[in-house]
Amino acid sequence: MKTIISAILFFGISLSVSSQTDTLSSDTAGIQRNDTLVLKQIFNTALTSGKSYAVLDHLCNKIGGRLSGSAEAARAVVYMKGIMESYHFDTVYLQEVMVPHWVRGAKEKAFFKSGTDQIPVAICALGGSIGTKGKPLAANIVEVNSVAQLKALANSEVKGKIVFFNGAMNPKHIRTFTAYSESGEQRWTGPWVAQEKGAVGVIVRSLTTIVDKFPHTGSMGSRPNTKGIPSAAISTFHANQLSKTLVVNPKTEFSFTMNCETLADTLSYNVIGEIWGSEKPEEIVVVGGHLDAWDNGDGAHDDGAGCVQSIEALRLFKVLNIIPKRTIRAVLFMNEENGLKGGKAFADSVKSQNQNVIAAIESDAGGFTPRYFVCQTHDERLTKASAWLPLFKPYSIYAFEYGHGGADISPLNAKQTLLIGYRPDSQRYFDYHHAGSDTFDKINQRELELGGANMAALVYLLSEHGL
Amino acid sequence: MKTIISAILFFGISLSVSSQTDTLSSDTAGIQRNDTLVLKQIFNTALTSGKSYAVLDHLCNKIGGRLSGSAEAARAVVYMKGIMESYHFDTVYLQEVMVPHWVRGAKEKAFFKSGTDQIPVAICALGGSIGTKGKPLAANIVEVNSVAQLKALANSEVKGKIVFFNGAMNPKHIRTFTAYSESGEQRWTGPWVAQEKGAVGVIVRSLTTIVDKFPHTGSMGSRPNTKGIPSAAISTFHANQLSKTLVVNPKTEFSFTMNCETLADTLSYNVIGEIWGSEKPEEIVVVGGHLDAWDNGDGAHDDGAGCVQSIEALRLFKVLNIIPKRTIRAVLFMNEENGLKGGKAFADSVKSQNQNVIAAIESDAGGFTPRYFVCQTHDERLTKASAWLPLFKPYSIYAFEYGHGGADISPLNAKQTLLIGYRPDSQRYFDYHHAGSDTFDKINQRELELGGANMAALVYLLSEHGL
Repeated sequence: MKTIISAILFFGISLSVSSQTDTLSSDTAGIQRNDTLVLKQIFNTALTSGKSYAVLDHLCNKIGGRLSGSAEAARAVVYMKGIMESYHFDTVYLQEVMVPHWVRGAKEKAFFKSGTDQIPVAICALGGSIGTKGKPLAANIVEVNSVAQLKALANSEVKGKIVFFNGAMNPKHIRTFTAYSESGEQRWTGPWVAQEKGAVGVIVRSLTTIVDKFPHTGSMGSRPNTKGIPSAAISTFHANQLSKTLVVNPKTEFSFTMNCETLADTLSYNVIGEIWGSEKPEEIVVVGGHLDAWDNGDGAHDDGAGCVQSIEALRLFKVLNIIPKRTIRAVLFMNEENGLKGGKAFADSVKSQNQNVIAAIESDAGGFTPRYFVCQTHDERLTKASAWLPLFKPYSIYAFEYGHGGADISPLNAKQTLLIGYRPDSQRYFDYHHAGSDTFDKINQRELELGGANMAALVYLLSEHGL
Repeated sequence: MKTIISAILFFGISLSVSSQTDTLSSDTAGIQRNDTLVLKQIFNTALTSGKSYAVLDHLCNKIGGRLSGSAEAARAVVYMKGIMESYHFDTVYLQEVMVPHWVRGAKEKAFFKSGTDQIPVAICALGGSIGTKGKPLAANIVEVNSVAQLKALANSEVKGKIVFFNGAMNPKHIRTFTAYSESGEQRWTGPWVAQEKGAVGVIVRSLTTIVDKFPHTGSMGSRPNTKGIPSAAISTFHANQLSKTLVVNPKTEFSFTMNCETLADTLSYNVIGEIWGSEKPEEIVVVGGHLDAWDNGDGAHDDGAGCVQSIEALRLFKVLNIIPKRTIRAVLFMNEENGLKGGKAFADSVKSQNQNVIAAIESDAGGFTPRYFVCQTHDERLTKASAWLPLFKPYSIYAFEYGHGGADISPLNAKQTLLIGYRPDSQRYFDYHHAGSDTFDKINQRELELGGANMAALVYLLSEHGL
């Protein structure tokens, strides 16, 4: 496209940040105008001198994957606390959390036999799985496309075999999280059902609609009183290859070796920073993401993006000299991926200290271009938030709608706290989710900064006007 | 994000494509229901067996950049005609267009002197520029940030120098095309103003908000009776480096060598395919993009995406056995980038044959995730199109609004033809636009196919209901 489209003055208002800071005090008669001006300042600053991209670069490329209990997670805690301190928030502190400590160990190996050949395939252990004690586990395969299909089999058809869940994520859903939810059962519940039916191991097709050689890990659901059976994700490319081979030779043998194990629980931390409210400091607006990330990638979209956006939201208040009426608090939760201990510890502390968290915004759907917010309520708080939509439309948010806020904030009391999810575009999310490909080069700077700015804008409106 | 969100049945309707083709006849009482069903079929098909991604792969990786008059453009014409024929459209034909034939020649070289060092920089000739006859053109530099700033200088300050336009694209605009429009003048008009003031050459900062080492080319505006002076784009990284050097040493000498030249006009073609209308074949709905692309990249987003989406729109009619009431026509325009001869030839043919093109949709803003449509009218046709919005909202289109339809369709009579632009998300577009980085790996399959499906959906509604 070359044509110089006649310049549309997208914003009627032209103002410099510095010239307007004097008008940011509360002026009830002028709230609407003030809100418009503050949002413009927030976006101008994010798009010209936002810091979240650089912080995420460090988090991904200098620290990398940071699963709970790992040395990388500990380094991420120290690094992000230091960043918050450098932003001069009113307080920055760590909140203790005991977290599971599962380790992958030496990289997994897997192959299947085709005639006399061994065909290597890419797998990675599912989070929480036991390993194979470093020795190959080999068996014939029973392929199914769902947990229901497995349940319909006689136990004798499963006993002693490796169950291969090959249900593909449904590409027809426009919102890809819907497809993930539908297909997630085979990873979440499948290994336990397979064990009950006598299987010796489980291979799950990666939860992504693209076909490539990256296995996508993720947790199994928890099940008390059993350690389960060795369970791994297989790349979609190799899942297709294996499935085709099974058509020709149903007796194909699969072999895999995994060195993962669960160690003793470890002390870790939520990382928290606050700017105190000037008028109603006891009312708190939370914004957060989760700091832990799977070890096989760098956790760029899941959920480094949400972390850097959350602290950027508070930083924008500082650099714009916006003093919130209510307290605003950034929380980087530990252990979303395999335990949710950070989210639970945070909710426990809110409850035990009788804190009044009026709203909590979570960003855990990637650093992509903005689309909408969801509110986990049908009550008048959704109506109130929706009334702010005209303020957001110039900034690529086109809806406030009902939806699940996010995992980390889910332990909070939803009657007291409005649980809000930031929703960027979801088309690319599962290309990288929980895979080695979730790296910093998949992040676009403008898309990331726009997300943080939209979160800052919503934090501002909540802190200014309450709910 | 790991949590298995409770599955929301995003679409209440479940149907197979084959079971519904019988209901696709016109049923006035059931139009609304039929429309919903047809759109669902279109999107299901695009997301499960869309072909545009594979066609674009070939266009980019087997043919590549395809500037008007080049061998690659000729191959692209043959290839895309063959693809349309393989889709069994009712007719596929070529429309002759005489196009300018500008060639870059051997790759440009450029450096500036810093002390005794020569610092190499990445440049590429602007389309239509004369070369330096293979010899270095060296001179001192005068740096300006806009055409207005250049005009304010005395001619004596410019004479014999190389003008360095270093105006940066404004990152504050949420819609990046607005920023492009604002900054475009220095590339479009700047070289001519510099020439008038006695400059010997022009270097223009690349029109992108990111900082990297890819120069972004593009046309200068045309100016009769002069060949201009050698003019090139410089990468943003090197523009910054050069600007800093000029602060220290305003006498810095810049040297560049370019081998570009304009050859005799060449015969080329628009590539056109049609499916004839069953009830009002004389009313025509056009959908198109431009087939030519700058030679320094592969023209993936600009505008291979628009081409493959346009023919995909018609292909979806064929595979779904949808017989349009009005004629639908895909047009792959030649020469958008440096002459618009294809768009003009097409409009001339429509006029001379007295054809009734009721609407023309252009996709020339990249293959990114869908956002909205623009209609180049304020009359009742915008109202009518806007009434279809509820049909599109499930598919990531959230608005029909006023806007410029597109360059290729702009020569059509806007009173007779509703000019429509498809608008995907614009955050990443200028990262790659007119640069060596506009390659196939920057395309996401789902985003591309969703664009083609939305275009198909709008073509369907226009062909079914008219305007």
